[in-house]
Amino acid sequence: MSFKGEHILSVSQFDRDTIQQVFHIARNMQPYASRQKRTKVLEGAILGNLFFEPSTRTRVSFGCAFNLLGGEVRETTGMESSALSKGESLFDTARVISSYSDVIAMRHPQAGSVAEFAEGSRVPVLNGGDGANEHPTQALLDLFTIERELAASGQCIDGMHIAMVGDLKFGRTVHSLSKLLKLYKNVRFTLISPNELAMPDEIVSAIENAGHQVSITDVLEGNLNADIVYQTRIQEERFPSKAEANLYRGKFRLNQEIYTRYCKSNTVIMHPLPRDSRQEANELDNDLNLNPNLAIFRQADNGILVRMALFALTLGVENIVGNYECAVPWYSNKHSG
Amino acid sequence: MSFKGEHILSVSQFDRDTIQQVFHIARNMQPYASRQKRTKVLEGAILGNLFFEPSTRTRVSFGCAFNLLGGEVRETTGMESSALSKGESLFDTARVISSYSDVIAMRHPQAGSVAEFAEGSRVPVLNGGDGANEHPTQALLDLFTIERELAASGQCIDGMHIAMVGDLKFGRTVHSLSKLLKLYKNVRFTLISPNELAMPDEIVSAIENAGHQVSITDVLEGNLNADIVYQTRIQEERFPSKAEANLYRGKFRLNQEIYTRYCKSNTVIMHPLPRDSRQEANELDNDLNLNPNLAIFRQADNGILVRMALFALTLGVENIVGNYECAVPWYSNKHSG
Amino acid sequence: MSFKGEHILSVSQFDRDTIQQVFHIARNMQPYASRQKRTKVLEGAILGNLFFEPSTRTRVSFGCAFNLLGGEVRETTGMESSALSKGESLFDTARVISSYSDVIAMRHPQAGSVAEFAEGSRVPVLNGGDGANEHPTQALLDLFTIERELAASGQCIDGMHIAMVGDLKFGRTVHSLSKLLKLYKNVRFTLISPNELAMPDEIVSAIENAGHQVSITDVLEGNLNADIVYQTRIQEERFPSKAEANLYRGKFRLNQEIYTRYCKSNTVIMHPLPRDSRQEANELDNDLNLNPNLAIFRQADNGILVRMALFALTLGVENIVGNYECAVPWYSNKHSG
Repeated sequence: MSFKGEHILSVSQFDRDTIQQVFHIARNMQPYASRQKRTKVLEGAILGNLFFEPSTRTRVSFGCAFNLLGGEVRETTGMESSALSKGESLFDTARVISSYSDVIAMRHPQAGSVAEFAEGSRVPVLNGGDGANEHPTQALLDLFTIERELAASGQCIDGMHIAMVGDLKFGRTVHSLSKLLKLYKNVRFTLISPNELAMPDEIVSAIENAGHQVSITDVLEGNLNADIVYQTRIQEERFPSKAEANLYRGKFRLNQEIYTRYCKSNTVIMHPLPRDSRQEANELDNDLNLNPNLAIFRQADNGILVRMALFALTLGVENIVGNYECAVPWYSNKHSG
Repeated sequence: MSFKGEHILSVSQFDRDTIQQVFHIARNMQPYASRQKRTKVLEGAILGNLFFEPSTRTRVSFGCAFNLLGGEVRETTGMESSALSKGESLFDTARVISSYSDVIAMRHPQAGSVAEFAEGSRVPVLNGGDGANEHPTQALLDLFTIERELAASGQCIDGMHIAMVGDLKFGRTVHSLSKLLKLYKNVRFTLISPNELAMPDEIVSAIENAGHQVSITDVLEGNLNADIVYQTRIQEERFPSKAEANLYRGKFRLNQEIYTRYCKSNTVIMHPLPRDSRQEANELDNDLNLNPNLAIFRQADNGILVRMALFALTLGVENIVGNYECAVPWYSNKHSG
Repeated sequence: MSFKGEHILSVSQFDRDTIQQVFHIARNMQPYASRQKRTKVLEGAILGNLFFEPSTRTRVSFGCAFNLLGGEVRETTGMESSALSKGESLFDTARVISSYSDVIAMRHPQAGSVAEFAEGSRVPVLNGGDGANEHPTQALLDLFTIERELAASGQCIDGMHIAMVGDLKFGRTVHSLSKLLKLYKNVRFTLISPNELAMPDEIVSAIENAGHQVSITDVLEGNLNADIVYQTRIQEERFPSKAEANLYRGKFRLNQEIYTRYCKSNTVIMHPLPRDSRQEANELDNDLNLNPNLAIFRQADNGILVRMALFALTLGVENIVGNYECAVPWYSNKHSG
């Protein structure tokens, strides 16, 4: 399919073919992301990077991805500086900002807001997270990371085993990732969480109805011998009390000792980040930083590739990126990255 | 006149000749704003985009206009992050920031502050709004829009009829626009507002003394058969009570039914934006969005053109923009805009 | 030495040779900073400009310096929008942001934080101020300014006389500058401050142990006949009461009358800025603005040169800047600056 001029609002827009299309372009972006090559294919194009809810990581990732294609970034952070607070509709904001930009990345605290905004926009809108609803670029970069990590040991997503750990109720990333994995074949899901934070029934049913195998448990030990362990943050603010949250938190910590005892020798560890490194949380201990299977920072790297791909596709330049290369006179540590 | 090196602080700086000079350059900017062409005439130049008072729309518009000429943008939003709060004078801030930039756009909540700042600046300063005082680029884009919209039906500003509606007392945009319209011939003004929100006497006198015809009324119905209807936001915060504000607000709503009944078939509707779309305000109903004479989003488009023109003029490149064109490999919906 | 790939965290990293290396490159940056020439040597490179503590001046200076070398800037301001508030370690933030950027400039309120961040970073980190600890680029630009100002009258840093005035206890700039001056020969220091705000003993000892002459006094009059007077802001928030602060403040004001009476005819006046121009503070009166020896705005200009030099050096392009020159079609007041 052609992504040119399309919005990217939800993981539901994708099937296996379109995912492979995005990933193919994402892989082509590697030399530009690693600064071995430089392209100016989007020179003069403007990204409207609208973060009505703050997020350093995602905002900067979108901005850098656009810069790496040669484009310029204008942005806004937070709600206070917005006309939305004076009663302007999302439609109006979209009409105006899209008159300035060539593509828009947007995060907003309210579910459905980005889709509503997209209706008023005259340019493609990429959903950077709309409240508890969707965060499709995160789901795509997670899936892209899984595919790459498995490929390194000759595996593929069909037939793999993934353990999702922690807060599976409120974590939007595990929901979206599950919806994408559903499109593949014979995936084995082990869902490890406190009962109170279990994956919502409708998502479990959807996975099972698509022919995948699901195990649900509240025990970490003995359930980690998966190809992928996708850890999440236990969000204490959702619990009746901090004390209760702490009960669960203790059980779901992952560190090198637990890895050695319960994981496979090449189990890949992922996390949507930020990981909470405070003593009382520490769901992914720093002693894993030396573990080569810790993929959390490669996820961040892959986020750049996926977002570059989506920009290139929605602006219709995915096949001409190489025509606008120029020299890279400056040194970058990225080459070894 | 040459704008090179000049500040743009007030509508009072302009006469008909200089306005036409700006508009001529603004029209030349159309192919670049619509992304049909790309220029790098300001490559390497830096805009200091200083918004000591938040404003997404105007800030992003200035920034995009500068990017579209090939320049870079460094910016600041809000007061808290500013040395001004540590007792630094506007003069000092201006000396320092102007040592970094090639041109400055500035908004500040305090009337007169931008002019004070300009005295310390070593580069041209464009006033992006100084409190209740001036917002000259808004006035110029409004006037540019009026000229363009009228030209589409073979009319011109001389001899036209404009109805200004709503809060004419506190609305800085209607004041500045009136000052510019005063320079033309035989304009007919219909000023529609609650008595409490009437246009200030000195502005009415100035218009009349310049030979224009002014009608003042607090009735909307029967007074809308103008060439231009310039609607504004009723600002409830100025009223003794919300209840009283609501009384007036009901009278001055504009929607398609009222348009059909009272306006001419080609009456152009304008608004400085943001329009308040909340039920209790809704001064310009969304059912007008399909009305081709609703010019509010074309105003936003024109803002880019006027700001590009002012940057080109103050940096002295208005006649060489075309010498620095380059390819536009990427697709943009702007082409049809 | 080669700065390529190195962090710039502390003035302690520098000796006279490396300082001269930075200053040599900084001087080479002049034609680009003054817009007489334009270079694109860092085209496509991305600066992560991370200001976890707000600072318009320093943030914009870093950003402009990078733009003037042809690079792009992505930035973040303030703490609230940061994953740090969700328990993310500085190491993780550094790993992620450095995966997006080619070099990072960072300010953070906590002493030692920038060095901690640098351990996780895959790209060079420039300390833009870590609390009361270090602000090495300010110290370097101060030293660079001293060297340039003295050179104008045929002097050099060896053997010069500097008077430091005001809050010498809490002012991080005078501490860092002293550490750099220590590397030179026979510098005469006159330290003028209230006893309560005296230069810390360990810094005084270090200066004396390096063979320099130090006089300590709480009297301004009669002690200003130095080559350089480095004035600072009296920070009333450190005092037991505002009234007490005001006692000291009166004594340490500098204005043209005091300059004429007590300074040499060519004494250079410096200040780290912002200067507090409020009546009750006013440590450097505006009547000095016409004094050609007031170097405070030249310090800001020099800050751009020094930061450009540090970016060029850490990215290893310091010798090829001129190979990527392009035309400057636009006018700038900078030429005369």
